[in-house]
Amino acid sequence: MGWGDLGVYGEPSKETPNLDWMASQGMLLPDFYSANPLCSPSRAALMSGRLPIRNGFYTTNDHARNAYTPQKIVGGIPDSEILLPEVLQNLGYRSKIIGKWHLGQQAQYLPLVHGFDEWFGAPNCHFGPYDDKSQPNIPVYNGTVMVGRYYEDFLIDKKTGESNLTQIYIKEALNFLELQANKQQPFFLYWAVDATHEPVYASKMFLGTSQRGLYGDAVRELDSGVGQILQKVKELGLANDTLVIFSSDNGGATYAKEMGGSNGPFLCGKETTYEGGMREPTIAYWPGRIPPGVVSHQLGSLMDLFTTFITLAGGKVPTDRVIDGIDLSPSLFKQAVNDRPIFYYRGDEMMAVRWQMYKAHFWTWTNSQKEFEHGTDFCPGQVIDGVTTHEQMNHTTDPLLFHLGRDPGEKYMIRSNTEEYRQVMPKIMKIVADHKENLQPGEPQLNLCDESVMNWAPPGCDKINKCLQPPKSNPYNCTWVH
Amino acid sequence: MGWGDLGVYGEPSKETPNLDWMASQGMLLPDFYSANPLCSPSRAALMSGRLPIRNGFYTTNDHARNAYTPQKIVGGIPDSEILLPEVLQNLGYRSKIIGKWHLGQQAQYLPLVHGFDEWFGAPNCHFGPYDDKSQPNIPVYNGTVMVGRYYEDFLIDKKTGESNLTQIYIKEALNFLELQANKQQPFFLYWAVDATHEPVYASKMFLGTSQRGLYGDAVRELDSGVGQILQKVKELGLANDTLVIFSSDNGGATYAKEMGGSNGPFLCGKETTYEGGMREPTIAYWPGRIPPGVVSHQLGSLMDLFTTFITLAGGKVPTDRVIDGIDLSPSLFKQAVNDRPIFYYRGDEMMAVRWQMYKAHFWTWTNSQKEFEHGTDFCPGQVIDGVTTHEQMNHTTDPLLFHLGRDPGEKYMIRSNTEEYRQVMPKIMKIVADHKENLQPGEPQLNLCDESVMNWAPPGCDKINKCLQPPKSNPYNCTWVH
Repeated sequence: MGWGDLGVYGEPSKETPNLDWMASQGMLLPDFYSANPLCSPSRAALMSGRLPIRNGFYTTNDHARNAYTPQKIVGGIPDSEILLPEVLQNLGYRSKIIGKWHLGQQAQYLPLVHGFDEWFGAPNCHFGPYDDKSQPNIPVYNGTVMVGRYYEDFLIDKKTGESNLTQIYIKEALNFLELQANKQQPFFLYWAVDATHEPVYASKMFLGTSQRGLYGDAVRELDSGVGQILQKVKELGLANDTLVIFSSDNGGATYAKEMGGSNGPFLCGKETTYEGGMREPTIAYWPGRIPPGVVSHQLGSLMDLFTTFITLAGGKVPTDRVIDGIDLSPSLFKQAVNDRPIFYYRGDEMMAVRWQMYKAHFWTWTNSQKEFEHGTDFCPGQVIDGVTTHEQMNHTTDPLLFHLGRDPGEKYMIRSNTEEYRQVMPKIMKIVADHKENLQPGEPQLNLCDESVMNWAPPGCDKINKCLQPPKSNPYNCTWVH
Repeated sequence: MGWGDLGVYGEPSKETPNLDWMASQGMLLPDFYSANPLCSPSRAALMSGRLPIRNGFYTTNDHARNAYTPQKIVGGIPDSEILLPEVLQNLGYRSKIIGKWHLGQQAQYLPLVHGFDEWFGAPNCHFGPYDDKSQPNIPVYNGTVMVGRYYEDFLIDKKTGESNLTQIYIKEALNFLELQANKQQPFFLYWAVDATHEPVYASKMFLGTSQRGLYGDAVRELDSGVGQILQKVKELGLANDTLVIFSSDNGGATYAKEMGGSNGPFLCGKETTYEGGMREPTIAYWPGRIPPGVVSHQLGSLMDLFTTFITLAGGKVPTDRVIDGIDLSPSLFKQAVNDRPIFYYRGDEMMAVRWQMYKAHFWTWTNSQKEFEHGTDFCPGQVIDGVTTHEQMNHTTDPLLFHLGRDPGEKYMIRSNTEEYRQVMPKIMKIVADHKENLQPGEPQLNLCDESVMNWAPPGCDKINKCLQPPKSNPYNCTWVH
């Protein structure tokens, strides 16, 4: 979902009472970012505390391409990456992921191999191939075995938009919380529900209830889930010992039009390195520790959750590698602001940098003229001359500078002949030089595709008669058009 | 200011703590509109409860033109219009306007001739002509006499942006409240400060304090003023007997770029009949009567304040004429929703209609290609094919239909061959037919200009040596390019 999808972030229908309440009792973080404008790399960064360019969740098949993990992807999260639940496991925490994993669907990449103790959900996104037996539907796992497939056992009616998936994921969360409370064991719950991703769905009781159509129904159901989780945490007496963070993995999918959500006043959306692609609707809640109704303008990143959670759990973040996430504790509990930059990557390229209120674009690109003409529009209704370019434009010697306070929509370039540009740009150039000097790109995981690695016969398929025959292995370089 | 300029309406800097607090203790009205996308007609409608096409605040010099009241305008609010303070005066209320009047600057049009008991402010907007002695600077009145002029006695430093005007207007408000409380006399305070209109200013203590630059400084000062007024109302023990409404007279002036404010997710801004031009950041506050933190999706209009205030004061709205404003009491106090349409006028033309979640454009126009090429852009960065047109496009037989819930940005037209269009459009056509059947356009007040009617020698100018010699009368038809 997008920054602008919550009432508290300005969505006009004001249909997220639970999230708005969470913000009123906690901290709003309007300057919080994902590490990537696309799902898989963003989640890999959240789990590893490291930029995709370091953890390998990118492609070198072409310049500045968004790549992710459809079923046919060969790669996944490398074993060499230390994931958040791995560290927490060593600290006595029990971790559960509910919903979408997205860090690779081959056996060696699955959550329980990487520190999670429990999983209920799917390795890939719930879109396609929709009951087409020529390719397997996405499996749903419970722990290490599959328990069914989307569209077959876990229904999503593409015509009516009905599915009770979110209800299932809500129940999973509430059960886990109850069990952990009974066991008095600390826990990490990664509630990574598929909603509000396309194809958008909602359960019957939410269908048709939103001013915003089906997408809004899904948002309302998600909001209701957050409300139930917060309520359960409170009922179980865990509220004063539990930090709850709400955020999203990328900007609203503006290319999906009315089904893509809102990025509020920001430019473009998912897949792009404009603000609409990476600024996330983030709320932190911890009664007793975070005062109610505060706002922090800390530049934050999903990668910070890695460092913050480990620190709060009494652990130590790895020191044998670069960790991009910072400990947000001073921002959350003491209203401090850490003067750190935000890097906007697309595939193998650093496209932009934010430092304080300034953002410099080193490269601009929406998508190719050809893709655009074929109907894929990442910036519907938005055209900023020289900024929303359909060619990859190299500005690395004279980056395009914007002030996101005066101009959150990245509309009014600060010309390079101004005093402001001359004052700001050298500082940003220094930040970028330092960043690049330390940069050791990881082995790219999203280059290779192979139909044989798809979810033909996941573990447990035989018990429920869901095994399919994989084709012969035939690896090839994936094509990433954007 | 625009819909998106308040924290509670999604402005990312979240710099309006007082207005956000007001919303948290009162009612947010995200579907509230001005009666016109421009200042003077909007205010005339607020004061009269009637659309500008009825009260005369429009021009017939050209089709669908925005006209307002610069100094050289000959017209003003007709004596035949019954204004809100006139009705309240008869009910024992004392009314004060602080700030901009904008309903004509000739003697017969001034506030104290039309029901107000007190006035501290100016007849026209504070822009131009900036100390150019060939034309008079705008006078500031206290009651019936001028006490100085903008840029001469009431300084606005166009270089630094410094002016203490808002502070003066805040003090005027607090004093009035104290006096009325002492007198125990009911009152109507119309706090119509010039900020945040261009040229944007703020007092020294607010300059440089906003993330948003000078515009944000002005918003912060305005917000602080609202906070002080609410605090004073409370201190004086008036809170339970006072309805406070915050709103704006038109959308953010997007043509002014970083100095124009934000219309959030909406299309275009001031001067246009897209949502950005007329949807206003509205909050209602009345402890004990309006429950805290509620949202009403009542389609509201500034004209409703006329009817609502008169009703609450125990009066009767005039029955000898059409009043467009409705009584909002059921929405404010009982969460009822009145199914009424919103008409979007530009000059003499009804450009669009909203009914429930639907909006139909009967005419589309931003501004002329020529004006656009000369740098006046009402929709910076926004281009919606067939919607943001630089020619006046007549869609009266097949209006362009949008669903503002699914698509608040008016990006995704509902095609006329869809079932939805066929179901909705006849209802809207009926509403429009009914509206037009009853429509008796008023005598247009904004057709005629004459340099001689400018503020050369307002009453009181002789006492402070501020009289200027008017030129001979030479009336001509004003030119309205947009």
